[in-house]
Amino acid sequence: MKTRRVGLVGITGYAGMEVARLLAGHPALRLVMACSRAEAGKRLGELYPFLEKLPGADVVISVFEAEKAAAGCDIVFLAVPAGTAMGMAVPLLAYGTKVVDFSADFRLRSRQAYEEWYSRSHNAPDLLREAVYGIPELYAEQIAGARLVANPGCYPTCSILGLYAALKNDLIETGGIVIDAKSGASGAGRKSAVETLFCEVSDTFRAYGLPRHRHTPEIEQEVSLLAGRDVRLSFNPHLVPMNRGILATVYASLKYPRMSAEEAHEAFSRTWEGSRWVRVLPQGALPETRFVRGGMFCDISVVADQRTGRLIVLSAIDNLCRGAAGQAIANANLMCGLPVETGLTLAPVV
Amino acid sequence: MKTRRVGLVGITGYAGMEVARLLAGHPALRLVMACSRAEAGKRLGELYPFLEKLPGADVVISVFEAEKAAAGCDIVFLAVPAGTAMGMAVPLLAYGTKVVDFSADFRLRSRQAYEEWYSRSHNAPDLLREAVYGIPELYAEQIAGARLVANPGCYPTCSILGLYAALKNDLIETGGIVIDAKSGASGAGRKSAVETLFCEVSDTFRAYGLPRHRHTPEIEQEVSLLAGRDVRLSFNPHLVPMNRGILATVYASLKYPRMSAEEAHEAFSRTWEGSRWVRVLPQGALPETRFVRGGMFCDISVVADQRTGRLIVLSAIDNLCRGAAGQAIANANLMCGLPVETGLTLAPVV
Amino acid sequence: MKTRRVGLVGITGYAGMEVARLLAGHPALRLVMACSRAEAGKRLGELYPFLEKLPGADVVISVFEAEKAAAGCDIVFLAVPAGTAMGMAVPLLAYGTKVVDFSADFRLRSRQAYEEWYSRSHNAPDLLREAVYGIPELYAEQIAGARLVANPGCYPTCSILGLYAALKNDLIETGGIVIDAKSGASGAGRKSAVETLFCEVSDTFRAYGLPRHRHTPEIEQEVSLLAGRDVRLSFNPHLVPMNRGILATVYASLKYPRMSAEEAHEAFSRTWEGSRWVRVLPQGALPETRFVRGGMFCDISVVADQRTGRLIVLSAIDNLCRGAAGQAIANANLMCGLPVETGLTLAPVV
Amino acid sequence: MKTRRVGLVGITGYAGMEVARLLAGHPALRLVMACSRAEAGKRLGELYPFLEKLPGADVVISVFEAEKAAAGCDIVFLAVPAGTAMGMAVPLLAYGTKVVDFSADFRLRSRQAYEEWYSRSHNAPDLLREAVYGIPELYAEQIAGARLVANPGCYPTCSILGLYAALKNDLIETGGIVIDAKSGASGAGRKSAVETLFCEVSDTFRAYGLPRHRHTPEIEQEVSLLAGRDVRLSFNPHLVPMNRGILATVYASLKYPRMSAEEAHEAFSRTWEGSRWVRVLPQGALPETRFVRGGMFCDISVVADQRTGRLIVLSAIDNLCRGAAGQAIANANLMCGLPVETGLTLAPVV
Repeated sequence: MKTRRVGLVGITGYAGMEVARLLAGHPALRLVMACSRAEAGKRLGELYPFLEKLPGADVVISVFEAEKAAAGCDIVFLAVPAGTAMGMAVPLLAYGTKVVDFSADFRLRSRQAYEEWYSRSHNAPDLLREAVYGIPELYAEQIAGARLVANPGCYPTCSILGLYAALKNDLIETGGIVIDAKSGASGAGRKSAVETLFCEVSDTFRAYGLPRHRHTPEIEQEVSLLAGRDVRLSFNPHLVPMNRGILATVYASLKYPRMSAEEAHEAFSRTWEGSRWVRVLPQGALPETRFVRGGMFCDISVVADQRTGRLIVLSAIDNLCRGAAGQAIANANLMCGLPVETGLTLAPVV
Repeated sequence: MKTRRVGLVGITGYAGMEVARLLAGHPALRLVMACSRAEAGKRLGELYPFLEKLPGADVVISVFEAEKAAAGCDIVFLAVPAGTAMGMAVPLLAYGTKVVDFSADFRLRSRQAYEEWYSRSHNAPDLLREAVYGIPELYAEQIAGARLVANPGCYPTCSILGLYAALKNDLIETGGIVIDAKSGASGAGRKSAVETLFCEVSDTFRAYGLPRHRHTPEIEQEVSLLAGRDVRLSFNPHLVPMNRGILATVYASLKYPRMSAEEAHEAFSRTWEGSRWVRVLPQGALPETRFVRGGMFCDISVVADQRTGRLIVLSAIDNLCRGAAGQAIANANLMCGLPVETGLTLAPVV
Repeated sequence: MKTRRVGLVGITGYAGMEVARLLAGHPALRLVMACSRAEAGKRLGELYPFLEKLPGADVVISVFEAEKAAAGCDIVFLAVPAGTAMGMAVPLLAYGTKVVDFSADFRLRSRQAYEEWYSRSHNAPDLLREAVYGIPELYAEQIAGARLVANPGCYPTCSILGLYAALKNDLIETGGIVIDAKSGASGAGRKSAVETLFCEVSDTFRAYGLPRHRHTPEIEQEVSLLAGRDVRLSFNPHLVPMNRGILATVYASLKYPRMSAEEAHEAFSRTWEGSRWVRVLPQGALPETRFVRGGMFCDISVVADQRTGRLIVLSAIDNLCRGAAGQAIANANLMCGLPVETGLTLAPVV
Repeated sequence: MKTRRVGLVGITGYAGMEVARLLAGHPALRLVMACSRAEAGKRLGELYPFLEKLPGADVVISVFEAEKAAAGCDIVFLAVPAGTAMGMAVPLLAYGTKVVDFSADFRLRSRQAYEEWYSRSHNAPDLLREAVYGIPELYAEQIAGARLVANPGCYPTCSILGLYAALKNDLIETGGIVIDAKSGASGAGRKSAVETLFCEVSDTFRAYGLPRHRHTPEIEQEVSLLAGRDVRLSFNPHLVPMNRGILATVYASLKYPRMSAEEAHEAFSRTWEGSRWVRVLPQGALPETRFVRGGMFCDISVVADQRTGRLIVLSAIDNLCRGAAGQAIANANLMCGLPVETGLTLAPVV
């Protein structure tokens, strides 16, 4: 298999670590550049002992320079904060390198929405139109032809995949949708902070960021596209004392309140039949984040409750693999002409 | 302070352990009897090493006999499964002993609801009318005069306290309420089972029992009484990898969608002003289960979201103390003519 | 009970939080002053939501000034880093206030040992001679008469109590002692740092700081005093993914290799008979940190293994309560003429 | 690559689950049979939702029959309890199938030692002489030619690899070795039991089984072989509130007490130079179980402490992969003529 050279900017976060882990086992994408201002000069294996004796361990961390990155890499992953990413993507694209951006900088099609939710002006608005939203199940063809892919947020990936079959099959009212989402602590990032210390997260549970978490407009954008109309919904995240994983519990009103549990399940099963990574669980079974740990699966259950007229969807992913690094690699696979699953046929680590 | 003699039937579960812990520091209620068929003959301190050198450690565990229990105890706590409890309560009351029942046997006023949700016939329906639902904030007076108190479920305690101010102040529509609740693993009980082994709960997250968890009718009963009309709501529990604690996230439609966050917060604050154990957090703060760990507090936040027309209430309690043993002791205090907070002024163990 | 006024300098750490928790339920020691440069001006309840509606919540955090502290407090707890504490203790004592110091500044009798292990000169060497090492089981009388108590480290408290009976009964060789200690993450303190983030501590286990952890000389000092000769030992700490608790596993050579398990157990039991807080477990039982959580107990098991000629002692405490704040309060009780256990008869929160 | 057919007896435990995970990604070993009396008739994917859409999910669980197993499989993994395994191995070998046994039945060369430590007579003593102890780093050649491999215990694998370089380089006295080992809860197995419930393991720490844990004779056997003399040592296991991982802290007396830290480190590095899976960390770094999670690495640090005359070795593995299923597959690879690392080049899941 022909090798493509991959650069990774932003190596110190959990998404960057996960890219390094996944590329260590990838047959065609080779990590050739890793950038971090703070850690420049170290070998990657020195920074991440888990990587020693594996491919990538000997890459020496460097400071990002667009021209050099473009010269050395076929594709670059930007795992840096929103606001920083757009300033790197513009020159990389100009030099002809492909880009998968992990930040929110290119996820929203509307510049106005970006500026409102992120309190920052966007300095590459043309790219907002060009960037493809990187969920392979929804946009495989466009991703394959893209120069710039906006890698989706972890919560949006989980929520959108969860709602997809309900919207495609017209099972629910689009008003009044509530997403109650729960994430492991790696979602909070790998930066020193008292509020994510072990003792502040362990053996406790809390909500955060509601009712205006920044993943809201991204979910609303994609749900609106699926619904064919503007949808406003309530998205509310919580922090679970675990490392990895997201479970989204989605509540919507059944369009036909007498719909049976069997009918709803059958619609979901049909929609996702043959999907590589979306697994609709048998009726009665409910997803658990551990069953998708470290892999690309999205496990979905659907419950139609006639008593309350509600459709409840439960959707689980690994936030670092499916919700970030793994999905980025799936997108890179498509952008490089490789089968989408290359290097990603991972059994969950239970 | 005059001492009252307390008996505890069902010592091997987490609620029983918590009763033993709390009574070890209680100035007026003294544990004089502890019953368990499986552990009969052991000293309580032998079963629970944490209790050694504390009051109660020397109680010898015995097999329950109603007559003997009634003779030796002023009040008996039944921490046994639903179905078993009613068979014990009847003779105890007949012998003139007061009873606080931890099970669901006397929580529902409707025999029909009980039989439907618990798939079992009720053999003491007269007591359903007599039993008082033991949330001190709602029913202190009736509890003080009761022979039989039905100690509420952990989820219902948390949910009902969370919804109370919204209903009292008529802030929400009573249709379409969703309660997304999350509990630590002690809620699953202390019985050997593969699905609650450490490795099956740790580092994972899942829903369970939805959409027909047995705490639903109990919540609906009390919410209906507060609302003055029949309310049907959607209650959905999840399992958090932590020991103790419940957080309920409650979603409802704002009656007046233009209600500001300040107005909602003010209504909640006013309603709970002066409450001993319900703490409405400052606007912008959100509850965490660790801040109520091991104590009687119920921490509540309210968020009015004009963008989606929703009122979101977050309510947190300790499931074993406020949600079971502590609330039982508060009820026993009232039933014995003691101040409700006797032995319960506990700072949370953060 | 006459009230004594307590000041607490260093409120943002876990030991400070635990002092606040314990004083909220203390009948005679009242928190009247809390100092922190970073949080000055806030109410204590604002900083620590768990404290609201409890005694101490309304104390307004201030910046430490020795004269003011001395004027307003009968006793001051210094929960600040080593090096800082000595500069505060000197003026406080000069103004006539009693001091319990949580840091290492006054634990070592030898100035040279302090300067060697802490790489810092000691600027109040006279106080090294005066300060009393605050383990009530060993030095109750001296503590009662002291102006300055050096509150012991958490590991030393656990290790010294564990070794006490072995040394007193001359069961072991004093050469070649190994202490393999394991602590929860609260021992690492409440400061922002990547290495104690939830995701860096959870679901993993590691050693740290060995073979020259700073608690070593403190343990060697007290063990030498008990043994009546200079003892050099190997102390090696590990980090456990839990909040609270320390378990020390102590290995020593049996002086009489044919000593039976019964004899060893009997010697330990006899030594600690009647102790308020040290519990020697029944033969065959082993301590668990949860059984001492949040309280003052030290649970000890002793195992004599003829096969290898070893005595193994297991000793467990709560690092924040017995290993810091609770022991400080016990010392303060003694220094104020109160019974040592005042406010500390706490059942562990299992 | 030519496919070999693998049978797995004992699918319900954690080791069996891990075999299923690892074989799902193995290019040459194909799971064709999975046996469990309790779960017979189910598809493997039904039992383990994490396995759906992966190789092996469609295997239908059956009841073990030696003849059928031998007919259908080139090699059989026995992941059943000690005592049961020997009864299965005898007929399988007689029918000509190769066997990797996960239990202790064939690990000890001495029948007497087996019968003493396992309180059970051995009914296939001839096989004790034939079986090869399956640590590839020590016995690759013999494994390649074996019909029956005794897959080592998790603790022994970690301890023996940790001690190997110290013994080979004659750095330590062989008397007085202490191994203080710590394991995650998956080591306790996947059987319903109160003592391994989440609430009994989480947020606590304890020792167990000491001083006569059954892994002791296995470690002593291999250490004695390496040392060239009979070694008796003290092995003491502890339970860590985490899922996977073992850390062994090994204490020994330095043969030459003036040996420097550098010399010791150099000896270890030299010994393991070029090893595929044993990683000697840089001086000053200490292993963490998360850095080997889910993979085959054994991370080792060595600390020579002149102050106490001790050599301290820290050794970390994943107990389920390196300590059970992964090592079994490495052995199976060798027995089938495949490169030892086939299907096992796994980056740890941090």
